[in-house]
Amino acid sequence: MLIKGDLVHCPSLGEVAIMRNYLLRVDSRGYVDHLAHASHADSLSILMHEDPIIIPQGSFLLPTFCDLHLHAPQFMYQGTGLHLPLMEWLNEYAFKAEESLDSKPQLAESVYRRLAARLIEHGTGAVLLFGTIKAETNLILARVMREAGIRAFVGKLSMDISSRPTYVEPSTNASLEAARSFCDRCLDVSASLPAHERLVEPVITPRFIPTCSNELLAGLGLLSAEKDLRIQSHMAEAHDQIQHVLSERKVDDMDLFAQSNLLTPRTVQAHCTFLAPPTLARLAKTGTAVAHCPLSNAYFSAQPFRLREALDVGVRVGLGTDIAGGYSIDIMNAMRQSVAVSRMREGARISGHYQAAGDHTEQEDKVLSVNWKEALYLATKGGAEALNLAMGSGSFVVGAPFDAQCIQVFDAATGEGTGGLDFFQDPRPDGLTLETLEKWWCIGDLRNRKEMWVQGRTISRH
Amino acid sequence: MLIKGDLVHCPSLGEVAIMRNYLLRVDSRGYVDHLAHASHADSLSILMHEDPIIIPQGSFLLPTFCDLHLHAPQFMYQGTGLHLPLMEWLNEYAFKAEESLDSKPQLAESVYRRLAARLIEHGTGAVLLFGTIKAETNLILARVMREAGIRAFVGKLSMDISSRPTYVEPSTNASLEAARSFCDRCLDVSASLPAHERLVEPVITPRFIPTCSNELLAGLGLLSAEKDLRIQSHMAEAHDQIQHVLSERKVDDMDLFAQSNLLTPRTVQAHCTFLAPPTLARLAKTGTAVAHCPLSNAYFSAQPFRLREALDVGVRVGLGTDIAGGYSIDIMNAMRQSVAVSRMREGARISGHYQAAGDHTEQEDKVLSVNWKEALYLATKGGAEALNLAMGSGSFVVGAPFDAQCIQVFDAATGEGTGGLDFFQDPRPDGLTLETLEKWWCIGDLRNRKEMWVQGRTISRH
Repeated sequence: MLIKGDLVHCPSLGEVAIMRNYLLRVDSRGYVDHLAHASHADSLSILMHEDPIIIPQGSFLLPTFCDLHLHAPQFMYQGTGLHLPLMEWLNEYAFKAEESLDSKPQLAESVYRRLAARLIEHGTGAVLLFGTIKAETNLILARVMREAGIRAFVGKLSMDISSRPTYVEPSTNASLEAARSFCDRCLDVSASLPAHERLVEPVITPRFIPTCSNELLAGLGLLSAEKDLRIQSHMAEAHDQIQHVLSERKVDDMDLFAQSNLLTPRTVQAHCTFLAPPTLARLAKTGTAVAHCPLSNAYFSAQPFRLREALDVGVRVGLGTDIAGGYSIDIMNAMRQSVAVSRMREGARISGHYQAAGDHTEQEDKVLSVNWKEALYLATKGGAEALNLAMGSGSFVVGAPFDAQCIQVFDAATGEGTGGLDFFQDPRPDGLTLETLEKWWCIGDLRNRKEMWVQGRTISRH
Repeated sequence: MLIKGDLVHCPSLGEVAIMRNYLLRVDSRGYVDHLAHASHADSLSILMHEDPIIIPQGSFLLPTFCDLHLHAPQFMYQGTGLHLPLMEWLNEYAFKAEESLDSKPQLAESVYRRLAARLIEHGTGAVLLFGTIKAETNLILARVMREAGIRAFVGKLSMDISSRPTYVEPSTNASLEAARSFCDRCLDVSASLPAHERLVEPVITPRFIPTCSNELLAGLGLLSAEKDLRIQSHMAEAHDQIQHVLSERKVDDMDLFAQSNLLTPRTVQAHCTFLAPPTLARLAKTGTAVAHCPLSNAYFSAQPFRLREALDVGVRVGLGTDIAGGYSIDIMNAMRQSVAVSRMREGARISGHYQAAGDHTEQEDKVLSVNWKEALYLATKGGAEALNLAMGSGSFVVGAPFDAQCIQVFDAATGEGTGGLDFFQDPRPDGLTLETLEKWWCIGDLRNRKEMWVQGRTISRH
């Protein structure tokens, strides 16, 4: 596949590069094997033999979004029941929904198909998923995502403790055995595919500390190391959850994960809202990445995540929707919310009346807000790096898989804005500018998304 | 007009009423003159003589939204330039844009037409507008809104001080004369219409303290009282603005407004983020309402508005988008953001490390968060009351003007969700539930909006 047009990506935090009129070629395995200005000698030579797909003026390619935290079964009740504190909410809503999918494979299939369609609608090309307890239901999830063509990391939940007697694994050993079996079955499917088509992988997924015994955590740590598998969980999320862990286990989340070798460069921990800078520095040393879910945090965390501080100490961070703790499946909303929340934190810092316990005084002079460019990095390259996707993922470089979305901000023929965007000066003479990108970032929606590819394959919405 | 179907409104703060299968009749002047269950004797008698428009199952009528704060000329650059502090931003972006519209009436017409279309797209039926300095440009704004059929309160800006030498009124007297002249011309147009068609009214609009001399403020206070006109301005919004006023005037915003008789039951003040509870109580006594603009606040206010405290002391509050200080024109986003921000404030309260200067200790035990039902009230009845719209506005009662939007959450024929809404159980047997409304509140968008009326007249998007 050969494409010619404007490309936009974030090579580093805070940097948005517009590559105007570039030629990009994707090889048969879905990797970018040429990327240069269309007038570059190599590009001209390629163009002599092949006609490119032309991205019209006013449209551009952007890396697909990465969603680092999404509970697939909870998609069933997206946007409802957000009035309870975390531990009650899990019991009232989450566990019930998950149990029902584990007992109704057809319902699971239909929920997961719809979920895949919505992810595609919103430009999410890679997603780190929490599933349910039952292996078979997670295999449905894996298959549906594979069929949809999305890069999906599927976590069969491990939980040998539960507040819901009917939704728990029967024993620690049974839980470990089920985790191993799910991973094997999931990997077996992948093994039958060529390497570049292995878009779906299993993830070791201790739900969170309150539902996992120390023995289970230790066993999952060993399993992950043995099979070199990614790990995901929730850490230091909510006031009631943290109190629960401290009173039951006498140790905090992070120490429990650490002692079980579950904080690794293969790990993504959701939330981490209650970690102060010294602890974030400790986390960075383990290589653990964080899924920042700002909307969900407003509902379930009494504190916002210390995003700027985490980035400053070198924690890899991406964004998560946390469906259904967050009600929006749109990573664009996660970007917007991450900026708004960080600005509120910065405002509180300026006002001088926000002193989180444990924050170091040397942090006090640092600006805490992030801007839209930084948020766009988190949604693309930041997320890809947190997930350890292949080299260059989340940006456009030779050798990287071609995971891209085509965004239209104005119509090339008329100069009129697309979707919610209005222009009162013909945008065509200037072409794509940073200002137009900012406008799209602020008010763009799914009407601006025209096409999507993962590993070079066109992804359709239905 | 006779309509039969489900109606939803908020009779009071926190209460969402679903009136299933009601019959509503609108008289020739656009007022509701019958409202009762469809099986009520009076309804049956009406139905014997007239066939109603049927709102299908899965759709419902909701009062239109009120946007209490929107800078019409700034719509031109919606979603750009949000990196500067308030006072710099005004100089760099706002004043320039406004000046350009004042010099280009055709551009003003095209910006305002587009603005009206976007308001309708997002279900806003009543809007309190800041315009520009020049009377003629504001008359264009008034005419465009009148032609669109939106209830609009148009404020010609009064400013005899400015950081931009080319965008300021030449003298205090000239400013007062221009304000009076604009109001007269605007009222003259209305006077030629029957009372129920007078949807557009002028508003006394001292931009904010930094641009208004004490003499101008005093004169505007007198003018408003003389003509019984609404007043709008910005108050206690941003750190740099407040510092500016204190250093230049030695008195704060609120005292300056108060001494000029600009805090009245006819007044809507935007933001008020820096007002602590004792001051909010003082504000409540003046009858002044507040336009709460949570998204804009994250960008330009170092503090969030004390929404719960304001409501508790009896301040009337509605929501504002604050285009373009806020980038979203959708009051649904304002609702969502108001809840998220209030929850973050509540989280900070629980965490015990958020003690705003001047907050009373007796407030410390009060829950600060608002929920989606309360936000829906603010967006409809709260806004209507803040604007002193006719009796019953913002809700469905006999005697109120019929300002309504038709929202579809699922398709009556198939049971499938509309727009972003997914249902995995056929929603038709249960019909419209609070849970479905919450889902719409969380993830609904313009795809769910099927029709809109203001004062009984159908409003079209184009």
